[in-house]
Amino acid sequence: MESPLPEHERTVTGEALQGALVDLIELSLIAKQAHWNIIGPRFRSIHFQLDDVVATARSYADTVAERAAAIGVPPDGRATTVADTAGMVAPKEGWVQDYDAIELMTRCLADAASRMRARIDLTDKTDLVSQDVLLGLTAKLEKHYWMFQAEQQNQSL
Amino acid sequence: MESPLPEHERTVTGEALQGALVDLIELSLIAKQAHWNIIGPRFRSIHFQLDDVVATARSYADTVAERAAAIGVPPDGRATTVADTAGMVAPKEGWVQDYDAIELMTRCLADAASRMRARIDLTDKTDLVSQDVLLGLTAKLEKHYWMFQAEQQNQSL
Amino acid sequence: MESPLPEHERTVTGEALQGALVDLIELSLIAKQAHWNIIGPRFRSIHFQLDDVVATARSYADTVAERAAAIGVPPDGRATTVADTAGMVAPKEGWVQDYDAIELMTRCLADAASRMRARIDLTDKTDLVSQDVLLGLTAKLEKHYWMFQAEQQNQSL
Amino acid sequence: MESPLPEHERTVTGEALQGALVDLIELSLIAKQAHWNIIGPRFRSIHFQLDDVVATARSYADTVAERAAAIGVPPDGRATTVADTAGMVAPKEGWVQDYDAIELMTRCLADAASRMRARIDLTDKTDLVSQDVLLGLTAKLEKHYWMFQAEQQNQSL
Amino acid sequence: MESPLPEHERTVTGEALQGALVDLIELSLIAKQAHWNIIGPRFRSIHFQLDDVVATARSYADTVAERAAAIGVPPDGRATTVADTAGMVAPKEGWVQDYDAIELMTRCLADAASRMRARIDLTDKTDLVSQDVLLGLTAKLEKHYWMFQAEQQNQSL
Amino acid sequence: MESPLPEHERTVTGEALQGALVDLIELSLIAKQAHWNIIGPRFRSIHFQLDDVVATARSYADTVAERAAAIGVPPDGRATTVADTAGMVAPKEGWVQDYDAIELMTRCLADAASRMRARIDLTDKTDLVSQDVLLGLTAKLEKHYWMFQAEQQNQSL
Amino acid sequence: MESPLPEHERTVTGEALQGALVDLIELSLIAKQAHWNIIGPRFRSIHFQLDDVVATARSYADTVAERAAAIGVPPDGRATTVADTAGMVAPKEGWVQDYDAIELMTRCLADAASRMRARIDLTDKTDLVSQDVLLGLTAKLEKHYWMFQAEQQNQSL
Amino acid sequence: MESPLPEHERTVTGEALQGALVDLIELSLIAKQAHWNIIGPRFRSIHFQLDDVVATARSYADTVAERAAAIGVPPDGRATTVADTAGMVAPKEGWVQDYDAIELMTRCLADAASRMRARIDLTDKTDLVSQDVLLGLTAKLEKHYWMFQAEQQNQSL
Amino acid sequence: MESPLPEHERTVTGEALQGALVDLIELSLIAKQAHWNIIGPRFRSIHFQLDDVVATARSYADTVAERAAAIGVPPDGRATTVADTAGMVAPKEGWVQDYDAIELMTRCLADAASRMRARIDLTDKTDLVSQDVLLGLTAKLEKHYWMFQAEQQNQSL
Amino acid sequence: MESPLPEHERTVTGEALQGALVDLIELSLIAKQAHWNIIGPRFRSIHFQLDDVVATARSYADTVAERAAAIGVPPDGRATTVADTAGMVAPKEGWVQDYDAIELMTRCLADAASRMRARIDLTDKTDLVSQDVLLGLTAKLEKHYWMFQAEQQNQSL
Amino acid sequence: MESPLPEHERTVTGEALQGALVDLIELSLIAKQAHWNIIGPRFRSIHFQLDDVVATARSYADTVAERAAAIGVPPDGRATTVADTAGMVAPKEGWVQDYDAIELMTRCLADAASRMRARIDLTDKTDLVSQDVLLGLTAKLEKHYWMFQAEQQNQSL
Amino acid sequence: MESPLPEHERTVTGEALQGALVDLIELSLIAKQAHWNIIGPRFRSIHFQLDDVVATARSYADTVAERAAAIGVPPDGRATTVADTAGMVAPKEGWVQDYDAIELMTRCLADAASRMRARIDLTDKTDLVSQDVLLGLTAKLEKHYWMFQAEQQNQSL
Repeated sequence: MESPLPEHERTVTGEALQGALVDLIELSLIAKQAHWNIIGPRFRSIHFQLDDVVATARSYADTVAERAAAIGVPPDGRATTVADTAGMVAPKEGWVQDYDAIELMTRCLADAASRMRARIDLTDKTDLVSQDVLLGLTAKLEKHYWMFQAEQQNQSL
Repeated sequence: MESPLPEHERTVTGEALQGALVDLIELSLIAKQAHWNIIGPRFRSIHFQLDDVVATARSYADTVAERAAAIGVPPDGRATTVADTAGMVAPKEGWVQDYDAIELMTRCLADAASRMRARIDLTDKTDLVSQDVLLGLTAKLEKHYWMFQAEQQNQSL
Repeated sequence: MESPLPEHERTVTGEALQGALVDLIELSLIAKQAHWNIIGPRFRSIHFQLDDVVATARSYADTVAERAAAIGVPPDGRATTVADTAGMVAPKEGWVQDYDAIELMTRCLADAASRMRARIDLTDKTDLVSQDVLLGLTAKLEKHYWMFQAEQQNQSL
Repeated sequence: MESPLPEHERTVTGEALQGALVDLIELSLIAKQAHWNIIGPRFRSIHFQLDDVVATARSYADTVAERAAAIGVPPDGRATTVADTAGMVAPKEGWVQDYDAIELMTRCLADAASRMRARIDLTDKTDLVSQDVLLGLTAKLEKHYWMFQAEQQNQSL
Repeated sequence: MESPLPEHERTVTGEALQGALVDLIELSLIAKQAHWNIIGPRFRSIHFQLDDVVATARSYADTVAERAAAIGVPPDGRATTVADTAGMVAPKEGWVQDYDAIELMTRCLADAASRMRARIDLTDKTDLVSQDVLLGLTAKLEKHYWMFQAEQQNQSL
Repeated sequence: MESPLPEHERTVTGEALQGALVDLIELSLIAKQAHWNIIGPRFRSIHFQLDDVVATARSYADTVAERAAAIGVPPDGRATTVADTAGMVAPKEGWVQDYDAIELMTRCLADAASRMRARIDLTDKTDLVSQDVLLGLTAKLEKHYWMFQAEQQNQSL
Repeated sequence: MESPLPEHERTVTGEALQGALVDLIELSLIAKQAHWNIIGPRFRSIHFQLDDVVATARSYADTVAERAAAIGVPPDGRATTVADTAGMVAPKEGWVQDYDAIELMTRCLADAASRMRARIDLTDKTDLVSQDVLLGLTAKLEKHYWMFQAEQQNQSL
Repeated sequence: MESPLPEHERTVTGEALQGALVDLIELSLIAKQAHWNIIGPRFRSIHFQLDDVVATARSYADTVAERAAAIGVPPDGRATTVADTAGMVAPKEGWVQDYDAIELMTRCLADAASRMRARIDLTDKTDLVSQDVLLGLTAKLEKHYWMFQAEQQNQSL
Repeated sequence: MESPLPEHERTVTGEALQGALVDLIELSLIAKQAHWNIIGPRFRSIHFQLDDVVATARSYADTVAERAAAIGVPPDGRATTVADTAGMVAPKEGWVQDYDAIELMTRCLADAASRMRARIDLTDKTDLVSQDVLLGLTAKLEKHYWMFQAEQQNQSL
Repeated sequence: MESPLPEHERTVTGEALQGALVDLIELSLIAKQAHWNIIGPRFRSIHFQLDDVVATARSYADTVAERAAAIGVPPDGRATTVADTAGMVAPKEGWVQDYDAIELMTRCLADAASRMRARIDLTDKTDLVSQDVLLGLTAKLEKHYWMFQAEQQNQSL
Repeated sequence: MESPLPEHERTVTGEALQGALVDLIELSLIAKQAHWNIIGPRFRSIHFQLDDVVATARSYADTVAERAAAIGVPPDGRATTVADTAGMVAPKEGWVQDYDAIELMTRCLADAASRMRARIDLTDKTDLVSQDVLLGLTAKLEKHYWMFQAEQQNQSL
Repeated sequence: MESPLPEHERTVTGEALQGALVDLIELSLIAKQAHWNIIGPRFRSIHFQLDDVVATARSYADTVAERAAAIGVPPDGRATTVADTAGMVAPKEGWVQDYDAIELMTRCLADAASRMRARIDLTDKTDLVSQDVLLGLTAKLEKHYWMFQAEQQNQSL
């Protein structure tokens, strides 16, 4: 497939998008896992909040993968690729207490947002169109990050 | 968590649901991978058909995982669990020709439906409520299977 | 086309589904005929009720026919097949009085439901997935049957 | 039932509408039969296109039958009437290859449109209101005809 | 205001449309009056059916009045104009029994449809565009006429 | 029909509601007449604003008439009753300049609101439930009144 | 819980709202019972009309109960409370003929509306905000009352 | 009313459905009572969750009652029947603390699900169509049960 | 492509439809140009009104072009064809004052409607189905024409 | 601008509405401030609940301001007017703990509702139409008040 | 709260977002004030246009405030903060003539857009994600600016 | 009209937007032409895909033209301007084979995207707000480009 980008720009941008894709699929699986296994007094509230993260992650996984295809780079979202290259700490097996789920999501979202910012820097010189996709995506991830972080604050403790 | 099922019934049903969950997540990842990487004259038609499979797989993954939780068995849908226990043949890396994508989906859906039928047999003696979920799910998978299979028929060849 | 069912199971199940398909198309044509030709004081009320039957019949005809295809049996819903194999009493030509339309529908729905129950028994041993489709369909037919039957009751007579 | 039309006009218009009704029911059954039995590489695309024909045929069957009733002529849409008086070539039993389904629909739609044009001429002298219904209906049938015909063109052959 | 029609055509068409407008406003007021005052066992069914007539009459009153304006003829829908030139028999004051309401509507709709047919003839030579509006409107009125008429039929009496 | 109100309360409340009904029908006819005949630079804006008045008037005419029926008083909304008892100044025949339409509506709405306030006083002693309907209705009329009045203000003149 | 009302006003208003709540729950159960058990020629029409009453009763039960809570009075809608304090005549067991269902609803609605009017009087001096809720609710009940009553009228008998 | 089931099957199935109906109405009243009287830090989250239970209970009460009618058994959902035969522990009067509401619902849902499973066993031999309704209903109840139970878990205690 | 029309009828009808297509595309471009460049006190009102014309023109361009294809005549809507054969006066470059935009649209719509009437005459002898499309289209254009014309009227000048 | 009210009534009513307007704008700003700055375990639940208050406040601010305009009194909702005349305690700068936000809203809503009740008394003698608006508004504010108050209750403390 | 940005970047970006927030709240209050107080011939058109500005301002105020929170800076949208730091010229008290409202909005939007452009420059070096939010927001403000400006143009003056 | 940009920035940005506008209108006309004239086995699938391109082109033409107006540059979208300055290869007259339509769109989209990238570079120094519009637009064009390109791939050839 031909690309609207020259060779070097395509390679760098393609790697940034591929990394973003793996992060987003991983994030959607972790959030679903917590969505199903969460227990504790805040069950219902966090149960729904986790599905908001899943919705963001799935929707941007599609955008990012199709952006990769659009610049001529085949995206790779296979289970083994995700399992092998994902950089987030895997959740434990079994039921997860509500505050642990919040702690887990805060950490995963911070990691993902930080890696996205590095990709924003990289694509600044290779493809502003892809960068624009990453900017919108990072704003969403950081908004989720703030919300989970806010739920951990307890000034009286 | 307490269960509405006795110990043995819970274990057998839980394993059936856990197996179904892994199959459905694996199926959703394979169909998305093909959705993004498909090429060839039938691109648009199959591109959309693959997303129909994703929608079925995601929706029933949720139903099956929450059914497991409802009988007191924590579902496991983590990336590594899926990568390690999934039974379908992984798609190749990179662009995939349209007829290869159809061939791939036909095989995966046949495998998944066949394993679901074994789970229907198992749960017949342990939990009719879970079996009812699997019956509806299998009808959907076999309908997708028919549609991909129908696209492979060519009487003039 | 390959089938997820072995030969014998496929044949028995396929015949059950084919019989259901003919009944449902016949039912939709009879209910539409009455919908158009009904006269009498209860015109409007029954006119709409008949279209509810048409909606049920058409929707399940699709489900049943595609289920047949999904198990590798080509469904046959041609006009001549319906005319030749349908088991319901054909309505008379021309305008039909409202109470006659109700009488007609009560009889047709009782017949159809009774034949569906026989198919539920047959498929119990050949395909639980198809049986599950027939269970849902029969519940709908028997609900319509109750409603038309209720309209015939008159305790003061 | 009284009619807004004099005797002769009613008879001629009523026959035109009755003929249109049978054609439309027959067309809806043929298109559904093909919808369920089609196989081949263009399965999905034609599968949906056939349902567009069904939607047109069902919707206009209702309009035409109720127009007949509105001029005091009871419409006849019973299975045996359709089987006995329909003028289209019946599709074969069993699976139908995609290009054969297109060929079949092109022929049926050409037949139906041609008969509708004759009815437009007849009603020009008996009922302009009914003719207006037939004009809109014929425009829809000829649009479907163009679309199936367009799919048969292959300039390189 | 200029007109797309010459003087004579404008006058004749304008009178046809003005007549139609008065009939439609009158019809909407009569149907609403019956909608509010109806009593008897068929209250609910006829109560709604009368509002269907109101909806048709109001919607076509708008179309017809704006068509008159579009050919440069100011439409006149004032209460006194309607009261002075309307040709339908006014309903009595007070509660109206259900079968009397049906009888009333059948008569009014027959009158209106018959006058619309005369206007269709007149506009055939002066403005086919306006005639097309009247054709669609008459089809709707005659459909309502059939439905009320059908409710009066009682073959056993 | 029995009434939830004693004789005197029923009579007084019934007259208030009947008066409101005639005002609302008259208002809807005047606003529609202006909607169709308006000309001038502000055509489009006032054309839509007039239909907002029609919507309010029609919706509350229904509420008021059914409230009358609910207290056992048959409402009278016939064309001749409206023409004979309406208290608003009838609009002239033919095209109406935009500022004249605004002037007309301002006057009609002021009249209607003022009569409604008298009815609010009357029903304060006979039926608080009907009064509550009139309060909501008057708020809507006075809001329309403000809007038309605001359009007449021109401080630079 | 603190209340925006002083002690005496709170007690009186709270009793009025509690009485309204029991009436509304009772009404919803009676209407549902009739909805399920009705038989006779007017089955379909009354079957739907009864569900309109259920919708009104359930929606206002929520409004009334939450209004009680809002003034600091815990609402009591338990089955035993309803069974012990409800003031309506209980329907008989088993199928109910259509005209008996209408008779039953007319009586229940008249009773409920009459008790609501007493509560409107009581709250006039204790809480105008709660009274406003009761006014809207009574208008709805009396509208249902008119409709069932209208269906009992038969001038020819 | 005739039944599609023989005498014995009808009696057994009818009793199962009647029992389910009483449970569902009782459940809807208990959940609404808690919905209105809940207090405590988790007010809003549980307030909405309780309404989800009400929605499930009301929707299935309708399905179950109409299924009873469809097999010729008149359903009984009167207040006194519910109060006399309901098997759940009645909630206390007045405000209820959030964790007590969760405790209450967990117990009620466990009771209801357990009785539904007994009815699933009974109908396995008398009516598979009714059993299919009970299977879907039990899956919903057990899902609600899991959710309330999950909210009680606190591993740190 | 075969045509449902004989050679001569096809040619004449095809030319009428091709002429209509060019007029509609030209009209949509002119109205959009004015939509973007309009200035003056009536900006907002005319800005939206122009988009209503665009919507009509685009929707009928599709209908007309597909009607041409349906009778076997390939429609030509290319930019150069439109630029070379369009018969309307092109708008000037740059900002356009509001009254000039109204003047422009009035002229263009009058031209287009007048040419459509000639096409209605031509197709009266060659294809009533296509004529019916042109009738509906002309009614819409003349309604837009009336509205812009009405905005130019100022009786006080 | 003329007013439907005499001078004194207009002044008193106008002041009541102006006071209500300032309270509602102030309330919407306070609730938004808390919506953005809230932290703590109940973040998500209260975050949404605060936006419900914003929706109520904004919607009624519009109703109240337009009611003031409708009686000829120009409403004043400018930032400085709100800052100078608002009577609620301003929230602190920066993050706000969840229970502090609840405490703040409970106090603000109690204040607002209490002032609204005074305005209800005032307008009882000057304008029942405006009073009706204030009654509906106060019911909404007191419902929000109950909900925040309920969240503060903790019987175990 | 932790921030995804280093200290300096956080401070600069936070100030830019806080400034944008105050501007947007101020803009929403000014536009609402004009929405309520506008008078003159263009009342209706500008009345709606002002609400479009309110919608933009409110929606972006939320986005900007939550973006500030997401980078760890508590947003400040209190009435006194807005009144003290807002940079726009306050509208006068009382009714405002339509052309004055347009003049006012043109000036406020020009001011706001100009300050937003300065913030776009500042955030170019501190946070591209926040800059992307400001870019979208400025495009909307400048579009509103164009529309109000266009309404002031009058080439004939 | 004043501009938020200085003279030089306005000129450069204005030219970039004007170029984008012409490209988008040209693209919408070419895609519609193909949409109407396409023939061949892939008719239906490409027929719809072409309309997706039309939707993108029309929607962004509006955004781009209004952005030009917002910076004070009158956009020029007249037919002759498009015909004279468009840079894409015009499609041939008459029917177009499906693979030729795909070839044509692939080329046009590649051309358009390449010119948009040049405009992105130009506006980087003159107006980041306009650049942001072009980034989003280019992402959409390149996605369409990928999809048509993917349909041309055939690894077996």
